[in-house]
Amino acid sequence: MIKINENFLKLQASYLFSEIAGRVSAFQNANPDKEIIKLGIGDVTRPLPDACIRAFHSAVDEMGKDETFRGYGPEQGYPFLRDKIADMDFKARGADISSDEIFISDGAKCDTGNFQELFSQDAVIAIPDPVYPVYLDTNVMAGRTGGFAGGRYSDIVYLDSTMENNFLPDIPEQSVDLIYLCFPNNPTGVVADASILKTWVDYARDNKALILFDAAYESFISDDSIPRSIYEIDGAREVAIEFRSFSKSAGFTGTRCAFTVVPKDCLAYDSSGNKHSLHGLWNRRHSTKFNGVSYPVQRAAEAIYSEEGRGQANDLVTFYMNNAAVIKKEMSALGYTCAGGDNSPYIWIWGEMGSWDFFDLLLNKAGVVCTPGAGFGSCGEGFIRISAFNSLENVTRAMSRIKETLKG
Amino acid sequence: MIKINENFLKLQASYLFSEIAGRVSAFQNANPDKEIIKLGIGDVTRPLPDACIRAFHSAVDEMGKDETFRGYGPEQGYPFLRDKIADMDFKARGADISSDEIFISDGAKCDTGNFQELFSQDAVIAIPDPVYPVYLDTNVMAGRTGGFAGGRYSDIVYLDSTMENNFLPDIPEQSVDLIYLCFPNNPTGVVADASILKTWVDYARDNKALILFDAAYESFISDDSIPRSIYEIDGAREVAIEFRSFSKSAGFTGTRCAFTVVPKDCLAYDSSGNKHSLHGLWNRRHSTKFNGVSYPVQRAAEAIYSEEGRGQANDLVTFYMNNAAVIKKEMSALGYTCAGGDNSPYIWIWGEMGSWDFFDLLLNKAGVVCTPGAGFGSCGEGFIRISAFNSLENVTRAMSRIKETLKG
Repeated sequence: MIKINENFLKLQASYLFSEIAGRVSAFQNANPDKEIIKLGIGDVTRPLPDACIRAFHSAVDEMGKDETFRGYGPEQGYPFLRDKIADMDFKARGADISSDEIFISDGAKCDTGNFQELFSQDAVIAIPDPVYPVYLDTNVMAGRTGGFAGGRYSDIVYLDSTMENNFLPDIPEQSVDLIYLCFPNNPTGVVADASILKTWVDYARDNKALILFDAAYESFISDDSIPRSIYEIDGAREVAIEFRSFSKSAGFTGTRCAFTVVPKDCLAYDSSGNKHSLHGLWNRRHSTKFNGVSYPVQRAAEAIYSEEGRGQANDLVTFYMNNAAVIKKEMSALGYTCAGGDNSPYIWIWGEMGSWDFFDLLLNKAGVVCTPGAGFGSCGEGFIRISAFNSLENVTRAMSRIKETLKG
Repeated sequence: MIKINENFLKLQASYLFSEIAGRVSAFQNANPDKEIIKLGIGDVTRPLPDACIRAFHSAVDEMGKDETFRGYGPEQGYPFLRDKIADMDFKARGADISSDEIFISDGAKCDTGNFQELFSQDAVIAIPDPVYPVYLDTNVMAGRTGGFAGGRYSDIVYLDSTMENNFLPDIPEQSVDLIYLCFPNNPTGVVADASILKTWVDYARDNKALILFDAAYESFISDDSIPRSIYEIDGAREVAIEFRSFSKSAGFTGTRCAFTVVPKDCLAYDSSGNKHSLHGLWNRRHSTKFNGVSYPVQRAAEAIYSEEGRGQANDLVTFYMNNAAVIKKEMSALGYTCAGGDNSPYIWIWGEMGSWDFFDLLLNKAGVVCTPGAGFGSCGEGFIRISAFNSLENVTRAMSRIKETLKG
């Protein structure tokens, strides 16, 4: 008899976005003439940079001709892309990362979800709260948690991000093995400076722990003093994996390209205490279960590293960050306490009421969709997340409607 | 201390293709003027169909414009593609599969590798020998095997495919829970008729087992009496998952698009014997760990279902099958016993010597690269696989060199 992986039964149904969709459609049905503006989901709205479109076309043409057609590529990605990433995202910032430490993939979601496969069943996992749900759900599926009660899974060490600690969780008191961190953070929008990151790197080194560092939003950092990569911190090469994505930095959410950095110095241990290279283990996993990213997509991603492409990608970031500034300014002027929005496309707002109550108020009175913070974890209760991914016109109209609603 | 998943240590290094590469480059270094013809790896060589190229370009253009840009798509794939697959690959052949039972992915390798995550740790797995290594390796990583000794992992039920059983393994004597089948087979090239598939479906129904059916090579079936899908067999909807790919059928190995069919009738059980829908479990897994296939790639795949696209994809298949016929005819004329090659791009040849000896002979004397059968499992010893994926000119030259070598 074929039996299921019963860990799946522990998963909480992902009510957040379906609950949002349900409430939005109920409102729309009751108010068919009312236009709804969506500032909920973290999805880009502007087209791909021209440089990417041109490179994409040219690679599609190559796939149509005998002389230039490409079949299977290297599972780890083509050197033309890995080399540019190593040089321009890392070496240029003083982070010593080489091309063969970069694994191209079709999404940071996949990579952050899959990386836990390399570790033992009994690894003690530390996960922020609030959090991007994939870190948690994939460890639940893998059987590293107990059941769910009181809003939390047992056997997970939650790293509380609250107003009191400026949404920068403290080092855990107990010993943990695997630590998920995300800066600029989703959903709170806060960043970590070098001294904070150093604390985590030192903790990991002292405890032979490993950091899984999600830097999917690094391109939104405008403050030069904030590290964009954890490898800007001394010693991180031995204790940190970094996940990056072109989704938000260049509008690739529907085009799909990302990468994971696995330094050759990163170690984990077997039960006899022998050291093993995570680079070798991930390479084995990646080449066994993945067949590389579409060749034309890799060429489109490569174009982000041309002078023209960099400029166009920067323009996208600037565009969204202008939206973020509008949102933060308006919400602050209304007297709300806001985090994020300066080096991140997300603004995290203390609503002075329940997350879902605030969500309903903005939906029903202003016709604006946000994301209730409670959907990201217990510590998100009382907050909402507003996303800067929309047109400036929509953002401006949304904010004036919100102003009217909240002043009234 | 971060500890590794020690199941990875049981994995046998994937020596096959690196060993082949090593021997090829040693030969090339010793014979710099000798041109080598590669009929080893199963990778296509001809460009994408024109219809796909045009659709690909048009979708790239959409990604460059405000009005038509697409961000995140549905993780399961766009309805425009799922609908056509359901109608033309299944309903048109009398197989009752609906659009929402189809999950678009970036590769059958990923899907055949990932699907085992849904099942319990103690599931008893039956795997053919010889076999595509991914089925085995992913179960090793998941901890469903013991160690490796004498060419095999313990705790796996191997399904021997030998000359004696015409490479069609017998139903296992012991009870198994999860059965991997692949027809047309890689590496043997044999197909299973409806009565054989019915035997497996009946076994699965009688034993509450599940079949993972890899149909990546179905487009090479020319014999109308051979099922292209396991869902052409009565009762299969309740006990079989099917994996398909555009890699070989339309030249997508470097473009990346595939799909998995999970019928809503497919069940698995928890330890209390309660029934669970695999459709729901896979949907949860797929949407948690995957973010959909690149939109332009899905449009390129959709174009295969246009009248023009179907014709062009059929031409590709006909082209490779003509190569297969040349290879099979020549090897048979030389007195070798061959399987496959009629409804499959692979010819499986009994070499009357060790697999690697035959490999070395063809490389060193004929300058032709094949794949030693022993690399696919113990039952592959003594065989080689020759692939039809190359130009007709190269295949013809390779066969005349082989003829000269083996006659001499």
